[in-house]
Amino acid sequence: MNNLNTLKKSNKAIKWLSKATSNDWLQLALAHPLEVLVDHAHCERKAAGAALQLMFRYLCEPGLSEVLSPLAREELEHFEKVLRLIKSRGLYLKPLPAPPYGTILSKQIRRDEPGRMLDSFLVAGLIEARSHERMVLLAEHSPDNELRKLYSELLISEARHFSLYWKLCLERYARPLIINRLEHLASVEAAILSDMHPEPRMHS
Amino acid sequence: MNNLNTLKKSNKAIKWLSKATSNDWLQLALAHPLEVLVDHAHCERKAAGAALQLMFRYLCEPGLSEVLSPLAREELEHFEKVLRLIKSRGLYLKPLPAPPYGTILSKQIRRDEPGRMLDSFLVAGLIEARSHERMVLLAEHSPDNELRKLYSELLISEARHFSLYWKLCLERYARPLIINRLEHLASVEAAILSDMHPEPRMHS
Repeated sequence: MNNLNTLKKSNKAIKWLSKATSNDWLQLALAHPLEVLVDHAHCERKAAGAALQLMFRYLCEPGLSEVLSPLAREELEHFEKVLRLIKSRGLYLKPLPAPPYGTILSKQIRRDEPGRMLDSFLVAGLIEARSHERMVLLAEHSPDNELRKLYSELLISEARHFSLYWKLCLERYARPLIINRLEHLASVEAAILSDMHPEPRMHS
Repeated sequence: MNNLNTLKKSNKAIKWLSKATSNDWLQLALAHPLEVLVDHAHCERKAAGAALQLMFRYLCEPGLSEVLSPLAREELEHFEKVLRLIKSRGLYLKPLPAPPYGTILSKQIRRDEPGRMLDSFLVAGLIEARSHERMVLLAEHSPDNELRKLYSELLISEARHFSLYWKLCLERYARPLIINRLEHLASVEAAILSDMHPEPRMHS
């Protein structure tokens, strides 16, 4: 957990992540800004779908819908905002083959409770944290004013999302258990990204 | 279509519906206000899920996400509002076996395009129209001030939802084709409700 703890101090998002994004990814993303933008629209609507899927699965768990429903709404607002920008550039949503990131991470979720719920929160939080970390990079380094502004605006609320998943874990599980599991999942997450997917995606 | 046309003039919601809700349903619902309220919370989150499901299926269809994403957000806002009232009464969400209404209606959706999309919009619109019609009844007849206020408030935006589905149809299909298909689906919808489900539900 040393690596995680060190990173935790440097960046709010990085508390979840065991390894920072490579410069190679940033260069790939900056070279294909509109493809990454369309992919980001897909990420926002998938994040909304994932929050609702969790809410539907654990509907009778007190305190969960109260968090996940507003979170899903906020992801949808972001989706609409990104879609407006895509359209203003004369483009529209198009299907983009997804990198293996989400599928491999989701396979780490244990099938039985209570592990399933904890892993679901942690995987969702990890994806949010990685998105946030990369949006920070795009907001800082994109040469396109409008894209820099978009990512900067989205960041403000996105930063809360992984904190919400963290809080959902803390309310239900012992901290050492969460940290131990997060350490495992964060190392898997970093390993997936270390073998960088060739297509320009938020999670290449 | 005579029946539909006559009803169309009397009530905005009823333009979709071939038969008005029976007094038997109203009496059943008024006798079990909190069970109907919990069921209504489920209806709101299911309506959000259905809108997102449609959006995900037809993601690259221009003009669709722009309507369905805000609609899903509004359904989730309503879900949260109903949940707050449920909690204020010392209750929480509980699983309620659903009446056969949604399942039977969904089975009417043709499997092939372009019929599948048209039927999906019409079935979603019919469910919204019936919910709206019944919420009007509850807003008028409930002896509980707080419930009357809740249903009245929700109605204001709910009334737009079936109009949105109608507009999505009109933008993509010839009016006679839509009317013809709606007449069939509306008659099936009324037939399902004429054999009233014994449990107190929004769609008994």
